[in-house]
Amino acid sequence: MDKRKRIEVCFTPGEYQYFKDEFEIVVVIDVLRATSAICAAFEHGVKAIIPVPTVEEAMEYKKQGYLAGAERKGQIVEGFDFGNSPYTYMNADFEGKEIVLTTTNGTKSLDVAKDAEVVVVGSLLNLQALSEWLSEQHKNVLCLCSGWQDKFNLEDTICAGAISEYLINTGRFTSNEDSSIAAKYLYLSAKDNYLGYLKSSSHRRRLKNLNLNEDIKYCLTPNQASVIPILKDGKLVKL
Amino acid sequence: MDKRKRIEVCFTPGEYQYFKDEFEIVVVIDVLRATSAICAAFEHGVKAIIPVPTVEEAMEYKKQGYLAGAERKGQIVEGFDFGNSPYTYMNADFEGKEIVLTTTNGTKSLDVAKDAEVVVVGSLLNLQALSEWLSEQHKNVLCLCSGWQDKFNLEDTICAGAISEYLINTGRFTSNEDSSIAAKYLYLSAKDNYLGYLKSSSHRRRLKNLNLNEDIKYCLTPNQASVIPILKDGKLVKL
Repeated sequence: MDKRKRIEVCFTPGEYQYFKDEFEIVVVIDVLRATSAICAAFEHGVKAIIPVPTVEEAMEYKKQGYLAGAERKGQIVEGFDFGNSPYTYMNADFEGKEIVLTTTNGTKSLDVAKDAEVVVVGSLLNLQALSEWLSEQHKNVLCLCSGWQDKFNLEDTICAGAISEYLINTGRFTSNEDSSIAAKYLYLSAKDNYLGYLKSSSHRRRLKNLNLNEDIKYCLTPNQASVIPILKDGKLVKL
Repeated sequence: MDKRKRIEVCFTPGEYQYFKDEFEIVVVIDVLRATSAICAAFEHGVKAIIPVPTVEEAMEYKKQGYLAGAERKGQIVEGFDFGNSPYTYMNADFEGKEIVLTTTNGTKSLDVAKDAEVVVVGSLLNLQALSEWLSEQHKNVLCLCSGWQDKFNLEDTICAGAISEYLINTGRFTSNEDSSIAAKYLYLSAKDNYLGYLKSSSHRRRLKNLNLNEDIKYCLTPNQASVIPILKDGKLVKL
């Protein structure tokens, strides 16, 4: 009998229903930019992040005095002071604080996955640290890509492919799904030049048009963080 | 202004809702095996195919005296004489006949797409003929992959990537979606050896276990047919 655990890739939150019952660990990925911002935040001393699916919920928290961020379609929502730019969170005012965050895609996936046994946050920033930790858990792992408004996106898929490739190379994991095979192929073609590979990706174009090139470069540069954010009682904290 | 038409790829019938309003032509693809069987059928003289989404509907037609086929999970459904093996349709008894067919994925996508302005059937078998025809239509084209039980599959995506690549190379089409970019990348890595590339794909393994290797080889050999099946009043006919 094959004792290897499974590592699979789900391309969008909408497809999570077809996967969810088979995996103990779900890695939520939104490279541009929610899960990159979350990794940057913990790397720079934020205490906790409360992900909420709607702008209304984020506003409720803000009224109660929380630091609250909201992003929709790449931009900061009116009435909020920040969104999901990773640079926002590298700020002494945020150190040791609990922050509330809602984003177009990333916090939606966190919400969709919240009942899994273990939910962690992945990005290219914590790729190595996360992959090493996952490889030691002896559990089935699903990478849940946040996509863009329920459609497939390239950058999340490539990050998921990188995690899969690492775990399969340990000899302790295997993939069965075609989505996982495709993610691995796409990662292998992209890995030597993420920025170049993604130059035609739709979300990179979208953010570039919003003058967010610095954010893009930061989010596509692997292994700048060693944190593994994990969901505990509705809050993301450092593992 | 960019006057080029769009060619995009939708990975699963479940995601069709996010695409449908923007395309005049939908190409339904189910390489293993529904749309390959449909192309083979018209290539061998079948007059019409009535695709139905459920086994019950197929059985109703059978009771009325129609030749009716039904496949679920790769196998012929009990009570039916044939399913979606392309070899079934290369049969003198089927020439000039109207045939009813229901399959796990392919007839479901045809049903999902039925209200589009134009619905045609694509497979690797009619790749060249279909791509040439599409390139002359001056309309936005969506390749709708049937996938496997609402999940992504490799072989449909590669076929969609091949159509996209052809149309983009004419200079008259462009792609914006990340799914289309990924499909093209996957096609370019696969095109020199479809069988080898797909050896680890989940559906190929599934059919191999059912001793359907001959079907697989046939379906993965491009340009054996010059027909373009098109949906007219609920029936597929030869264009």
